[in-house]
Amino acid sequence: MNDDLLRIDAARMHATLDALARIGATGDGGVRRLAFTPEDKAGRDFIEARMRALGLDVRIDGLGNLVGLRAGRADGPAVMTGSHLDTVATGGRYDGAFGVAAGLEVMATLADAGVVTRRPLALVAFANEEGARFQPALMGSQVFCGRLPLADARARTDAEGVTVADALDATGYAGPDDLRDLPLHAFVEMHVEQGPVLEAARVPVGVVTGVPGITWLRFDFRGETNHAGGTPMELRRDAGYAAACLARHVREVARALGGLQRATAGRLTFVPNLANVIPGEASVTVDLRNPDAGALREAEVRLRAFAEAVAAEEGVAVEVRTLVHAPPVAFDAALRAVIAEAAERLGCPAQALVSGGGHDAGIVADRCPSAMIFVPSVGGVSHSPAEYTRPEDLEAGANVLLHTLLALAETDDEAQKNSAPA
Amino acid sequence: MNDDLLRIDAARMHATLDALARIGATGDGGVRRLAFTPEDKAGRDFIEARMRALGLDVRIDGLGNLVGLRAGRADGPAVMTGSHLDTVATGGRYDGAFGVAAGLEVMATLADAGVVTRRPLALVAFANEEGARFQPALMGSQVFCGRLPLADARARTDAEGVTVADALDATGYAGPDDLRDLPLHAFVEMHVEQGPVLEAARVPVGVVTGVPGITWLRFDFRGETNHAGGTPMELRRDAGYAAACLARHVREVARALGGLQRATAGRLTFVPNLANVIPGEASVTVDLRNPDAGALREAEVRLRAFAEAVAAEEGVAVEVRTLVHAPPVAFDAALRAVIAEAAERLGCPAQALVSGGGHDAGIVADRCPSAMIFVPSVGGVSHSPAEYTRPEDLEAGANVLLHTLLALAETDDEAQKNSAPA
Repeated sequence: MNDDLLRIDAARMHATLDALARIGATGDGGVRRLAFTPEDKAGRDFIEARMRALGLDVRIDGLGNLVGLRAGRADGPAVMTGSHLDTVATGGRYDGAFGVAAGLEVMATLADAGVVTRRPLALVAFANEEGARFQPALMGSQVFCGRLPLADARARTDAEGVTVADALDATGYAGPDDLRDLPLHAFVEMHVEQGPVLEAARVPVGVVTGVPGITWLRFDFRGETNHAGGTPMELRRDAGYAAACLARHVREVARALGGLQRATAGRLTFVPNLANVIPGEASVTVDLRNPDAGALREAEVRLRAFAEAVAAEEGVAVEVRTLVHAPPVAFDAALRAVIAEAAERLGCPAQALVSGGGHDAGIVADRCPSAMIFVPSVGGVSHSPAEYTRPEDLEAGANVLLHTLLALAETDDEAQKNSAPA
Repeated sequence: MNDDLLRIDAARMHATLDALARIGATGDGGVRRLAFTPEDKAGRDFIEARMRALGLDVRIDGLGNLVGLRAGRADGPAVMTGSHLDTVATGGRYDGAFGVAAGLEVMATLADAGVVTRRPLALVAFANEEGARFQPALMGSQVFCGRLPLADARARTDAEGVTVADALDATGYAGPDDLRDLPLHAFVEMHVEQGPVLEAARVPVGVVTGVPGITWLRFDFRGETNHAGGTPMELRRDAGYAAACLARHVREVARALGGLQRATAGRLTFVPNLANVIPGEASVTVDLRNPDAGALREAEVRLRAFAEAVAAEEGVAVEVRTLVHAPPVAFDAALRAVIAEAAERLGCPAQALVSGGGHDAGIVADRCPSAMIFVPSVGGVSHSPAEYTRPEDLEAGANVLLHTLLALAETDDEAQKNSAPA
């Protein structure tokens, strides 16, 4: 470890996270800041005020994506960090918020140290990453990258029929800027892992190799509702049986493909779902993920074939729909090397791992070289009030982020050396 | 076929069924007469009025079980027929109602023909057979037989917290009589099959051998809720996977035991039941039926063992509860012979079959020799607006009921021979 290196102020960063966690606090350690609600707006207002206090140039686009720009010694594309501030309905205090708080802490650390980088820096808080209230997820980064037209996003509705536009107007969430043309050199997103890999390996920092491709398949089986007592076994057309066979087979497919294939039957419903009635309808939604696009396709092919076979055998109909399909994203190799070098300079153990879920960085990768840094999630728990990352891991991650951004923005080595460790 | 035999008036019986089907009609061919509702009371009032018009001696007990007594030439135990008038929420027009309408038609036919039997006859409409609103099912017959104390039954609540006593008071459903001491010689219940066996065999009348034993087992699996993307396959404790394996295995158990073993996983729920979340909890309720008590017990043992094994393998906990257990009931062999002889005398094809579901006759069998006559259910459909039995099958069944009751009540052959066919 080189003790001359600049470091973030861990106490200040934890205080920022504490302050964010109070906005939409659910009283059980959890946070509820559903996209475009007053709580979400309050969280963003808090970050915007902190950006302004640090002298950042604040821009907000028509969906409420927030960017704070820190001028460099030269004009040109910015090195951006950040994440999102919205949560799921029963969210934790780290998912998204940590990436924004860590980025803010980097800005504050540089300000304290009087560091001016060559390239501009940018801190972003993307709107509606979770998609918990309004679909699709990753809405803010998709609008930011021009992948989803703003007008389309604004027309989306929540379960109550409220449009994004209504919610934006009600909270004053939208701003006047267009961020699609903001020149970007690179994007590095800091995030909690939301999986158990780093904790199991006892490694504080993960260099994320990419976001897996994701396919959601919905299988709707339609058989014949009948009395559980009166219907002989051989005369049944049991949609529930076909669905149970498929839900079990999902595990077989993951085992057979091996590697990083993940396959989950998380949603399963029977109709009418009564103990003494043979289900006439049953649906299973399967979540398939793999960083290897070919393997992901193979998993889908195998599941579809199994569903057809089990349906034919049981005499039930099956309809298969693709609800979600996103190809895998491999993060930029040069950026990943910069992150790994920053960790090494800091003497911080780091390991490569693949992300489990989708992230804004997977979208921004369309627009500029992108990568992610993960810190461990205790027990792999996320989207839960029980979500937890140890303070020392948060600190380690934020220091790796600091030095990654410094390296990417080509800092003046003198400035760094002269600055006192925080 | 012997054309001198007395026969019911089919047109009148169909009109009775039509009139009953209008009480609580749902507009789609279905009927909704949930127990102890005003619709249920209206249905019973209709039958009570018809009983009184036929000169029957009407008795109503504290749960609203309705009996109409027709005096015989001698005093003594009555030969009883009947069924129930309540329906499930989306019921059909035959389940229960047909047994009451057929019994009423037998009484009317005897009245028209001037037949007075040696033994008294009785027509019963049991309260709350379905258990759709208030559990347990077969509540009326259990009170009638003293198996369930009236006070216990009256204290049961529906989903809104309304007690049976409240509902009885609100509708004026209860009566002053105690029917537990009513002397009974035999009980023959007429019912639609609610299964596909008779239709498949093209036989209009079934002589029911018994009611299978029923066991409902609820399996609650508890694993760990986790992100479908972030959690490697080998670190999962997927309650949904264990539940799907069990739901599939239910079929294996039925196959392995063979015979009349029936096994259904009709109810299955995942928590939180989201596509991208590994279920932390999952429940399966299994309905096991077998007229052979030993085989039924073996099915339960096998399912419990499988659940323990799959739970251990997956690292999830499992709790198993018996929600329902009723031993099999074999109907009285002499009574079954009387039914078969009546069918043969009428030239009506009949076959023995086991009931799929529980019926009031299975309870009344505690109290006096009991049996049942089934007529075909088209497609085996029941508990549905689509429930249907062909008019000619209803007529055939009611005629078999008529001659079964005549035989049991030891009619004067002269009276029968002199009566004109209806």
